[in-house]
Amino acid sequence: MTSKIIGVGNYIPTQTVTNLFFDTYRFLDESGEALKQDNATIADKLKEITGIEERRYAEKEQVTSDLGFLAAQAAIENSGIDPESLDYIIFAHNFGDVRFGTIQSDMVPSLAARVKHHLKIKNNFCVAYDVLFGCPGWIEGMIQAHAFIKSGIAKRCLVIGAETLSRVVDIHDRDSMIYADGAGAAILELNSDDDTGIRSHLSASFTLTEKDYLYFGKSYNNDSCPDVRYIKMNGRKIYEFALMNVPKAMKKCFDESGYTIDQLSKIIIHQANEKMDEAIINRFYKLYGTAVPQDIMPMVIHKLGNSSVATIPSLLTMILKGELPQHRLQKGDIALFASVGAGMNINAFVYKF
Amino acid sequence: MTSKIIGVGNYIPTQTVTNLFFDTYRFLDESGEALKQDNATIADKLKEITGIEERRYAEKEQVTSDLGFLAAQAAIENSGIDPESLDYIIFAHNFGDVRFGTIQSDMVPSLAARVKHHLKIKNNFCVAYDVLFGCPGWIEGMIQAHAFIKSGIAKRCLVIGAETLSRVVDIHDRDSMIYADGAGAAILELNSDDDTGIRSHLSASFTLTEKDYLYFGKSYNNDSCPDVRYIKMNGRKIYEFALMNVPKAMKKCFDESGYTIDQLSKIIIHQANEKMDEAIINRFYKLYGTAVPQDIMPMVIHKLGNSSVATIPSLLTMILKGELPQHRLQKGDIALFASVGAGMNINAFVYKF
Repeated sequence: MTSKIIGVGNYIPTQTVTNLFFDTYRFLDESGEALKQDNATIADKLKEITGIEERRYAEKEQVTSDLGFLAAQAAIENSGIDPESLDYIIFAHNFGDVRFGTIQSDMVPSLAARVKHHLKIKNNFCVAYDVLFGCPGWIEGMIQAHAFIKSGIAKRCLVIGAETLSRVVDIHDRDSMIYADGAGAAILELNSDDDTGIRSHLSASFTLTEKDYLYFGKSYNNDSCPDVRYIKMNGRKIYEFALMNVPKAMKKCFDESGYTIDQLSKIIIHQANEKMDEAIINRFYKLYGTAVPQDIMPMVIHKLGNSSVATIPSLLTMILKGELPQHRLQKGDIALFASVGAGMNINAFVYKF
Repeated sequence: MTSKIIGVGNYIPTQTVTNLFFDTYRFLDESGEALKQDNATIADKLKEITGIEERRYAEKEQVTSDLGFLAAQAAIENSGIDPESLDYIIFAHNFGDVRFGTIQSDMVPSLAARVKHHLKIKNNFCVAYDVLFGCPGWIEGMIQAHAFIKSGIAKRCLVIGAETLSRVVDIHDRDSMIYADGAGAAILELNSDDDTGIRSHLSASFTLTEKDYLYFGKSYNNDSCPDVRYIKMNGRKIYEFALMNVPKAMKKCFDESGYTIDQLSKIIIHQANEKMDEAIINRFYKLYGTAVPQDIMPMVIHKLGNSSVATIPSLLTMILKGELPQHRLQKGDIALFASVGAGMNINAFVYKF
């Protein structure tokens, strides 16, 4: 048996925020000193490294669970299933529902419970819970759903990844230009008929020295209230960590699937930073002594930014809906999904379409 | 095969807070009107219904993940295992780390990652994640660990439940007297040798009309900042919901285990409200047409209050360590674990010691 994706959906927030939006921001360094470059130069450099030209923000009246609900609804519609037949709703996020203009995370009840409520599902045995695992949360939710299916306690699971990072950014930190809002979802189902579905998976948590590479910290503006925290990252350390560990983890996962490297059709990786993702893919293929095939890695960070848990299911939906013409997935294609983020966590799964 | 508990631990916070502590509080009703009774009468009534005389609060410098770490450390010591051999660290909570005097929830990185860091575990394949499922989160974490073990992706999992509800209480709401801080943990391991361990389990989410029975809401004091939210509950609705649904869910789970009602030695239920728990147990036995056996339900809410996810693993540790002389668990004893809370979620498992 295996577990197979029978439907996908995403919700692309409606507010487009270009790099120009940040033109009047006062960016500071960690010690609170103003950055020497002007904002146009900072934005150009950011674009050069991360690829980000634009990102999407949720509307003021929306919260993370609303975005997740819209993606879930789309995935259910795409699958054609009766939502009452779901055994699990698993919602990956990292900050709960943070209403616009406030600083508290609301996750009581869980965001999964909110989605289930909005979906009007009556089946009480559809279990709704949230998982926190940094940016790799959606892949982790898929692996957990796969475990429930494999163990016989579930047959059909909805896995959502949604985030509104725009609600937790420090406006004095240039990294705030990286973060975006978004949502994606997939429905995973028991497959006893053929070998399509999840073929192997891997999860890892690096916490000994890496725990605070991504954290919730004070503003770079020393005049800000020290009790108000924002998403913060040590970009250089994350870059080095990712290059050192993600390609190896991807290889371990891919090798466990039993496929050979020439059979791999697509790498669907967390859209955190274009240059970093390219460097990861280069190292991954280097481990096999092979050149990187053309069009192996779809990249939508240019227009969508980094929406944490939402990037992968959102991108997968775009591919399967034919919105990225040079990136098609056909029956029999093998894809490697991979992510890295706060924890620091790394995970991956190999999927046969 | 089954999954067996090989170690337990708890951390009972050091600050004892008696009902007298609240004597100077100004309790209001939902509309902001002062309650008619004096605080001594309110406290007496609370004690009469919930059983709570005292509760424990964490020290000011502690956060939820610190309590969880201490319970985890105790469980590891109790089991005698090498922590490097853990495949999973699953941390159930509902509000993240909320530092004393602040209102933000911090859960980046996850609380499980923080515990793994404090435990100095080097094994990167020990996966650390958080689960949000209301008060039943610890039981849900145990069920997830069981699923990972059953599916073959894990052999040994540490499951932690910890909470500092004292950080999210509205001082104008008399329900604040119910909430407490605490932590408990257990290590669940693959058992291929005999039939001891988890024999059946059940999880359910009631979200259609019950989503907001427990929620994050404004202070009863209309002069308070409306953007600051606190743990809030509709006590009467929860009571009715629990009485209607928990006994049936417990019976369904117990019947699935194949044991007969006379074989049941102990019911270890979430310590939310003594009268409610007694009414649940009464209804549960009524479903079997049997009287409630003496000493079937250990109750420590009198001295510890309601610490959400922490009540059950904390209580289990007390029993197994012999701290409750009239509640012993011997080899071969059958226990039913059950919980109810925000979502609204209900879950249970039957365990053979």
